[in-house]
Amino acid sequence: MNTKDLQKKQAAKAAIKYIQSDMVVGLGTGSTVAYFLDALAKSDRRIIGVTTSKVTSERCATLKIPIVDIDEVDHIDVTIDGADEVDTYLNGIKGGGAALLMEKIVAKNSRENIWIVDNSKVHDTLGAFPLPVEVIPYGSGQLLRQFADKGLFPKLRRSQVDNQPIITDAGHYIIDCHMTTINNPYALAEYFESQVGVVEHGLFLNICDRVIVGGETIQIQERQQNQMGIK
Amino acid sequence: MNTKDLQKKQAAKAAIKYIQSDMVVGLGTGSTVAYFLDALAKSDRRIIGVTTSKVTSERCATLKIPIVDIDEVDHIDVTIDGADEVDTYLNGIKGGGAALLMEKIVAKNSRENIWIVDNSKVHDTLGAFPLPVEVIPYGSGQLLRQFADKGLFPKLRRSQVDNQPIITDAGHYIIDCHMTTINNPYALAEYFESQVGVVEHGLFLNICDRVIVGGETIQIQERQQNQMGIK
Repeated sequence: MNTKDLQKKQAAKAAIKYIQSDMVVGLGTGSTVAYFLDALAKSDRRIIGVTTSKVTSERCATLKIPIVDIDEVDHIDVTIDGADEVDTYLNGIKGGGAALLMEKIVAKNSRENIWIVDNSKVHDTLGAFPLPVEVIPYGSGQLLRQFADKGLFPKLRRSQVDNQPIITDAGHYIIDCHMTTINNPYALAEYFESQVGVVEHGLFLNICDRVIVGGETIQIQERQQNQMGIK
Repeated sequence: MNTKDLQKKQAAKAAIKYIQSDMVVGLGTGSTVAYFLDALAKSDRRIIGVTTSKVTSERCATLKIPIVDIDEVDHIDVTIDGADEVDTYLNGIKGGGAALLMEKIVAKNSRENIWIVDNSKVHDTLGAFPLPVEVIPYGSGQLLRQFADKGLFPKLRRSQVDNQPIITDAGHYIIDCHMTTINNPYALAEYFESQVGVVEHGLFLNICDRVIVGGETIQIQERQQNQMGIK
């Protein structure tokens, strides 16, 4: 196992202590969450899961972790998810696995959000990871032109198998914006939210409460109230 | 033909004079637009259409009006659409026919937007017509609760045939908000745009340039620059 995978596994195992039996637990998507699901299945915690993708639902079925639909619960106690990038303000970028929409819906309905990551995901400023934006297929060519005009370096995400646009679980496309540095993530989020045809964007701002970073020593960072992270 | 249908037909016919041959024309959805398509097919104008729904695409095929995908054109010259309600500032509510998402995408890519309506659609203040909001099915139950808490009187739109939630052309649900009066449509639009799970809302603000109201005398209203319509 390489260092990155080891750190993912360490972070995933460390997250178990925030889970108690009978909790409703939001279950993210991705390779780090896969380690968490393994650890959860082996633990003595008996929870009810709410998933963020078909992939995670399938993995829960295999591991016999019971899941319900988000609309069957009043609220979610805590959500464990990965992140593609996280900054010092605990703002982040998600959507590398194309599950950002359901991840954000679950996160917004959670009382607490914990991200588990390896050390390579932690950066002072967001933007090194291309920002995924989920869009309606109809008119997506117009959005690509518009994003390019705004200097966002957009690229439609395509399948490596057949080069066709990838389709999200909800039936949309993903445009990845290769900006390298995002100086004001709040202004950018507002821009995307006001665009017709944009379903959701991968900026997760003021959502994460705690980040667990894997390593020889587990690093835990907690979000302070009222910090904005504008640089 | 009753008065309403007569006025729709009058407005539809009056819109033809804003169409010239070789224009790229956005084609809305609904009963008033259906009259416009009939008039267009009978006219000597030879245009290229960009449609806003499967229903309109099918009607164009029948009437032999050529259509292209929105991403095949640089821009749309003018869009002719109906509206469920329009106020004195030419702001409106659309989405009664569940086509608001594609209608708004086409409208935003149009250099000019003309609405054709019968007189019953014109009101001083918006809100008499329930405001349609297009949402992601996953988590829509949570949104319904949230909208209810905010006093928006939301109701999931269901099929009159089988009582199942209706599904839009893009695969989403519609929540109708029965508010009766919308005092600040801009603030409400901003609220919906910031909600995760909301794909688009039926408030069309600062979009319509000209409204044609059917009647014995055709009324034409044009939007003034910089008017906001906040009451």
